[in-house]
Amino acid sequence: MKAEIITIGDELLIGQTIDTNSAWIGWELSSAGFDVRRRTSIHDNRDEILNALSEAAERKPELVIITGGLGPTSDDITKQTLCEFFNTKLVPDREVLEMIEKMLRRRNFPMNENNRRQAEVPESCRVLPNAAGTAPGMWFEKDGTIFISMPGVPGEMKYIMQEHVLPDIKKRFRSQVIIHKNIMTYGMPEARLAEILEQFEAELPENIKLAYLPSFGVIKLRLTGTAGTLNEIEPLIGAQTSKLYNIIPDLIFGEDEQTPEMAVGQLLKIKKLTLSLAESCTGGFLAHRITSVAGSSEYFAGSLVAYSNNVKTGILGIDPAILASDGAVSSRVAAGMAEGARKLFKTDLGLATTGIAGPSGGSADKPVGMVWIAVSSDSGTITEKHIFSTDRIANITRFSLAAMNLLRLQIINR
Amino acid sequence: MKAEIITIGDELLIGQTIDTNSAWIGWELSSAGFDVRRRTSIHDNRDEILNALSEAAERKPELVIITGGLGPTSDDITKQTLCEFFNTKLVPDREVLEMIEKMLRRRNFPMNENNRRQAEVPESCRVLPNAAGTAPGMWFEKDGTIFISMPGVPGEMKYIMQEHVLPDIKKRFRSQVIIHKNIMTYGMPEARLAEILEQFEAELPENIKLAYLPSFGVIKLRLTGTAGTLNEIEPLIGAQTSKLYNIIPDLIFGEDEQTPEMAVGQLLKIKKLTLSLAESCTGGFLAHRITSVAGSSEYFAGSLVAYSNNVKTGILGIDPAILASDGAVSSRVAAGMAEGARKLFKTDLGLATTGIAGPSGGSADKPVGMVWIAVSSDSGTITEKHIFSTDRIANITRFSLAAMNLLRLQIINR
Repeated sequence: MKAEIITIGDELLIGQTIDTNSAWIGWELSSAGFDVRRRTSIHDNRDEILNALSEAAERKPELVIITGGLGPTSDDITKQTLCEFFNTKLVPDREVLEMIEKMLRRRNFPMNENNRRQAEVPESCRVLPNAAGTAPGMWFEKDGTIFISMPGVPGEMKYIMQEHVLPDIKKRFRSQVIIHKNIMTYGMPEARLAEILEQFEAELPENIKLAYLPSFGVIKLRLTGTAGTLNEIEPLIGAQTSKLYNIIPDLIFGEDEQTPEMAVGQLLKIKKLTLSLAESCTGGFLAHRITSVAGSSEYFAGSLVAYSNNVKTGILGIDPAILASDGAVSSRVAAGMAEGARKLFKTDLGLATTGIAGPSGGSADKPVGMVWIAVSSDSGTITEKHIFSTDRIANITRFSLAAMNLLRLQIINR
Repeated sequence: MKAEIITIGDELLIGQTIDTNSAWIGWELSSAGFDVRRRTSIHDNRDEILNALSEAAERKPELVIITGGLGPTSDDITKQTLCEFFNTKLVPDREVLEMIEKMLRRRNFPMNENNRRQAEVPESCRVLPNAAGTAPGMWFEKDGTIFISMPGVPGEMKYIMQEHVLPDIKKRFRSQVIIHKNIMTYGMPEARLAEILEQFEAELPENIKLAYLPSFGVIKLRLTGTAGTLNEIEPLIGAQTSKLYNIIPDLIFGEDEQTPEMAVGQLLKIKKLTLSLAESCTGGFLAHRITSVAGSSEYFAGSLVAYSNNVKTGILGIDPAILASDGAVSSRVAAGMAEGARKLFKTDLGLATTGIAGPSGGSADKPVGMVWIAVSSDSGTITEKHIFSTDRIANITRFSLAAMNLLRLQIINR
């Protein structure tokens, strides 16, 4: 069961917008048993759109999902081109018009000509109402292929997919089941991990495949299994997952879409522990990762982003003499920060980062990319040093991941 | 001058990885005068790769950039398939082998069979050395089209692009100049902005186009100009940019890739003001945005992420009676937090957020998505209320953007 994704928009091709839509759609379609064979991005241009549609049609997939080009502004021409491809014409749709009117009233915006044009739809399509925005989705069928066109605004596309497209295509198609299982690891580079898992991979059953997906030190191991039924494939994937836990127990922090912050949050909840942070180089990003998990207020008290040295001494109580002798990026300052956070916020655990995110500010002794991390608890304080890259944003991410991993291992080994 | 981008990897199609590479490449190529006509993503599969290469070749672009499928693990088959397409064979490359050995020594990792395979390259290609990783780039030419294959790891791809590909293609091609100018706005929804700018758009010269690129309330207005030379197009784009400043002065916070945090940082620097934060619902994300700007320590002292009410009263000095009567999400608590941050961190300005990020925790009076923002300075404290969506991560972003915009307008109007 094949599917293709076509995303339309100059901004995607010139790189002003990152195409997160097709990632989301790809995930949903493959979870629904589709093999997403191709993703194509093209200009907001009649010929390009017609070519991409014809080429996709020739490969005879069961499904083509199209996003973009349905906004209210005049750079959008998809709807007219779809009429041409499906040999139909635009007609006003009363239901869509009412929906747009209602939405504009709620937000207190007046209706304008742009909004009125959004209520026109190709005559031959089935309209997929869009409660999240003003442009509806459209369902076409031609020579055995379903074509679905949706707006490019992520919230609107997701609404139409979840409310209409996914339920309808699941009803229509019953097929081979493809399941993906992710095992999330941290702490070992890809080439070395591949060496450790060489025999594991060689021994995998024929219908299970392994892939490595690295990102800032987190390596997602993806097992993909294919079978006639879920009952057939799930135990096989389960057995391989258990095998991985035996080979690399300390490296695995979670499964599927679990993030390090979710893993840490779950551990804190289970062990009924509270956490606070003192952040220098991570500048609030660590707190953001922790609080991006819904329900984090249960175990997270707060963070002191101590960007200046005055804040480190004044609010966190770091001894100015240590700051002067060891420097801000040092084991003793990291330890003092973690202890200071624990006291200030009155929590069981304190986690701290102090380092040089870059791009400048490094020295021979303390290069850009160096970080000291500390975890403080009633059983004492431990610190750890890492050296990463020279890219500021990458370093902020890597520092935060290293900090969460140290915290995770400390909680587990308590 | 046409270009295409082909990205290879199952993870891109099933949506486990978001394709940031092609956005980056698209931006660089279009800045170099290329019209990026198509972006295609395909599986790590011999037939799919051969088809995509042949189809791209048939459209006769001057340039095809290929990323992915060159990693050390066995799910990667691009190199073998490139040999087939270009009718050549893999041979060991001494220079690449030495580079890999050197890199592994520095990181203290042993050389393994996977690394050794990475030192093999197709005989007919020009090797593009990769100092950022182990897999080199490869430059092929066939029937007037240049094909360049690079690893999919973003840091490595960027290194090879910047060191080899971009300088070489700029030397080879001299062409029409395409320039993009972004005007960054905040505070007006797309359909209404389009109405305000309708006449502006109608009066644009023929070789300048306008596009709207919205993201969480930030709308990027993109002017794209085409001409024979830079000298011809730059004044035209400049004149249209000035016109925009006259029509929507308060909405514009920056140009090109300037983010709200860069705009705020620049204003703080120019006016020699210091800033601190007290964050509840934004949970450190606002501090992260501010500190993601290199050099932010010059004006940013720190943030108190006050996730629990105890922290709001204990550390920020919010009156518990106000917290009890008005609730944490209220104008007076937001004001108290901004004032508390200003005192705690001893800064000129204090910025605070308190709201309900969701997905749960809302009420009829205070729905999910509601936020109070406050800015405190020596001239007093002002507060502002917004109601956004029900999505936690979207809300955290929108709250932070609204807070930065209020701060920006306060600094400008000081």
